[in-house]
Amino acid sequence: MERHFETEMQALRNRLLGMGAMVEERMHGAVVALMERNAAAAEAIIAGDQEVNELQIEVDDRCLKLLALQQPMASDLRLITAAMKINADLERIGDQAVNIAENSLKLMNAAPLRPLIDLPRMAEIAEAMTRDSLDAFVRKDAALARSVLARDDEVDQLKDHIFRVLLTYMMADPGTIERALSLILVSRNLERIADHATNIAEDVIFVVLARDVRHGAAVPLE
Amino acid sequence: MERHFETEMQALRNRLLGMGAMVEERMHGAVVALMERNAAAAEAIIAGDQEVNELQIEVDDRCLKLLALQQPMASDLRLITAAMKINADLERIGDQAVNIAENSLKLMNAAPLRPLIDLPRMAEIAEAMTRDSLDAFVRKDAALARSVLARDDEVDQLKDHIFRVLLTYMMADPGTIERALSLILVSRNLERIADHATNIAEDVIFVVLARDVRHGAAVPLE
Repeated sequence: MERHFETEMQALRNRLLGMGAMVEERMHGAVVALMERNAAAAEAIIAGDQEVNELQIEVDDRCLKLLALQQPMASDLRLITAAMKINADLERIGDQAVNIAENSLKLMNAAPLRPLIDLPRMAEIAEAMTRDSLDAFVRKDAALARSVLARDDEVDQLKDHIFRVLLTYMMADPGTIERALSLILVSRNLERIADHATNIAEDVIFVVLARDVRHGAAVPLE
Repeated sequence: MERHFETEMQALRNRLLGMGAMVEERMHGAVVALMERNAAAAEAIIAGDQEVNELQIEVDDRCLKLLALQQPMASDLRLITAAMKINADLERIGDQAVNIAENSLKLMNAAPLRPLIDLPRMAEIAEAMTRDSLDAFVRKDAALARSVLARDDEVDQLKDHIFRVLLTYMMADPGTIERALSLILVSRNLERIADHATNIAEDVIFVVLARDVRHGAAVPLE
């Protein structure tokens, strides 16, 4: 029974990692489609969302079965319920990839505004945050999770910078307004991805800290 | 034991309803502050977010205790794990109230653009969706939950309409760009609130349908 439980927990971790890899690839693909003005690639991202939704249902189902059948201990309970929350955040990261792809398609209808300012950099950080938050979950690594939280400020600063630059464009030339608005919305999509990665990292810290506190060995907060 | 479990489940429902009432009040307050250009009210919304965060932690804690101590049955498991997800969505609705309050403060620095177009209407629907999704949870009312899903399209249409009207303003008079952008962002905040209400409604349908299927009485999907 114990061995079976461990096998199922490992399968859950692997599924969640697989889902993480899928949404990372999709957000990356959406940003590349934007940069390369590749409409077919953007449309493929939009069409592929169903696969993420199906994986989310499967992961949720695994979690519920583990909760129902195995009478897990407190630390495993925290881990399984965290997995359910992380699963929801990953699915929503997938939704943001769709939003980016949709905004990209709009941008392809007009001449490019300029080399996308800091959007690729912002996308890079949001992607790394997503990847690291999941690695932190699998390795129960609170320090790595905390490094994800720290990067959220950088994303917010880039978002503000992008906003100010695009505002200047729009004021100087109303002909740029529609394109600038689409780019602002993409920056908000990326901000939301970083927010979801932050949620995941917070869940990881809760799982790890609560476990360690229970064992009488509190992890220092800084 | 059984009676104790029921008492604790009822306490959980009440807490979640209390949290729902709190975030509804806060989103409502943020929109009123925007309409009445009341900076003090907007600042109070921003300052009050901590209370929501604390309630979220308490609700999560109740859920974990129920899962750990009571060995709940499959239908209760679904209900408790749904409560944890709903809890997260409510907290994020609270975050959107803060975002609306922050955008309102920016708008108060300049002359009003015009009577806010459809934003109050959009806010009203998002509020009702939040309230109804929680009522549906407490009453296990799949039909009410489905009516929430149906209203999400209306919110999206209002969002698109607001976007088009404000775009016209910006193009006609670049002096309106900053204010129009803030209003567009408020409409996106409201859209996110409606999205969270939709998530809650989907969780309710899952809880209710799975329970009813288990009892051999499937609820028709339409």
